[in-house]
Amino acid sequence: MDRIAAARAVFDNDRFASEATGVEIVEVEDRYARCQVTVADRHRNAMGAVMGGVLFTLADLAFAVAANSETLAEGKLHWVSIDSHIAFLTNTRNGILTATARCIRQGRSSCVYSIDVADCEGKVLAVVTTTGMKT
Amino acid sequence: MDRIAAARAVFDNDRFASEATGVEIVEVEDRYARCQVTVADRHRNAMGAVMGGVLFTLADLAFAVAANSETLAEGKLHWVSIDSHIAFLTNTRNGILTATARCIRQGRSSCVYSIDVADCEGKVLAVVTTTGMKT
Amino acid sequence: MDRIAAARAVFDNDRFASEATGVEIVEVEDRYARCQVTVADRHRNAMGAVMGGVLFTLADLAFAVAANSETLAEGKLHWVSIDSHIAFLTNTRNGILTATARCIRQGRSSCVYSIDVADCEGKVLAVVTTTGMKT
Amino acid sequence: MDRIAAARAVFDNDRFASEATGVEIVEVEDRYARCQVTVADRHRNAMGAVMGGVLFTLADLAFAVAANSETLAEGKLHWVSIDSHIAFLTNTRNGILTATARCIRQGRSSCVYSIDVADCEGKVLAVVTTTGMKT
Repeated sequence: MDRIAAARAVFDNDRFASEATGVEIVEVEDRYARCQVTVADRHRNAMGAVMGGVLFTLADLAFAVAANSETLAEGKLHWVSIDSHIAFLTNTRNGILTATARCIRQGRSSCVYSIDVADCEGKVLAVVTTTGMKT
Repeated sequence: MDRIAAARAVFDNDRFASEATGVEIVEVEDRYARCQVTVADRHRNAMGAVMGGVLFTLADLAFAVAANSETLAEGKLHWVSIDSHIAFLTNTRNGILTATARCIRQGRSSCVYSIDVADCEGKVLAVVTTTGMKT
Repeated sequence: MDRIAAARAVFDNDRFASEATGVEIVEVEDRYARCQVTVADRHRNAMGAVMGGVLFTLADLAFAVAANSETLAEGKLHWVSIDSHIAFLTNTRNGILTATARCIRQGRSSCVYSIDVADCEGKVLAVVTTTGMKT
Repeated sequence: MDRIAAARAVFDNDRFASEATGVEIVEVEDRYARCQVTVADRHRNAMGAVMGGVLFTLADLAFAVAANSETLAEGKLHWVSIDSHIAFLTNTRNGILTATARCIRQGRSSCVYSIDVADCEGKVLAVVTTTGMKT
């Protein structure tokens, strides 16, 4: 089973991300991941734009995939987010949103990832910094 | 129409919070709101606990209701979150989760709210600080 | 040597907080601390108000004292901040500023503290959430 | 007077950054700035490393210079930070520290900057996200 299939097998169990939100994993490398969601009516806030919780959930899943990238083949998850900061830059109403998670620090018991969420034209909608902890 | 009915009428349109996540508004006062969600399988992450995006979405809706509390009767939303920090303290697998949003600063063009997310025994699962901006 | 004297003995070595910034430890309890600074010209930013770095430094020292409160008597420091979020609510130009650090989660390898910075009338100037890690 | 001289003339009045902390402005472009500090004993925390408040102050000044870059020639400051998140990645004991502030969103009344703090070998010590507001 290749890496992305392994990631999908594990995170299909993340029912909030995969089912309720519709997030799909599209790329996994060492300490790196990209996830996507196609904006639909179920993602809207009361103003008709994408609800902040969608952007957060998309970024949080990208973090979880990237931070656990090295043990996904064994079906194991060791890292969880303990702390996240999200800055909302702009919003959108349509298209595919992509979260890209990159490691900026990997320690033995803690890690820090930077996650960008962009629309289909590459415009950044949100920047997220997440601190993870080994469980 | 009372205040909570007005809030529900507006935020039923937040389809990600109200439908995908199942958040319900249970109290609205001036610059204060409480929202709840009952944990179900759709809220789980790959470890079987509540996904971080659920806690964030619940807190973000409580912020939106509280920050807009003064104009909900007119069906108007002026305040959006531009920035949020969430610290995850512990997790749970069952029960009703409650987010309580309180204003800690209200300016003319920006505001800051503190939102606690607790389980049904009052144990705090996450603390959120959200900065809002008037649109 | 009492607890506050032990704390001062350790943190006198924090030369940035104690000398450059002039922070003084005024209370130490289990997982709780209060620190103060008296606003002077050296604390001003280019607008004449208190520079954000002063409020941050004051809060960060209060965190360090509180998080290490249990081992200060032995002169040991085990906890460091790995992540902080500060929201600036208002500013001031004079008086004594007080940071109060309270534990909101204490785990074996990580902790979360909430720190308020207030002026001498009790008006909150900044709220800080800090995640600590055991070294 | 060139741009960097204008920036220095304004921010010499930031006495906490320029005097107490010893921060120097080394580059200013549109919505971009670099500031430096040379680590000395006055910057140490109780463990002998650089105190978190030094990294924060350095980053906060870089933000202030960058965010106000367009009006520094007139000696005017319109933008202040209302909210900052700092993740501490690693620490150092010596050398020159550089904070580089880049705009990631510029709106009419709010802005978001990303600021990296690196040591003299380019290793990143802290990543900061700051939301600014027009006063």
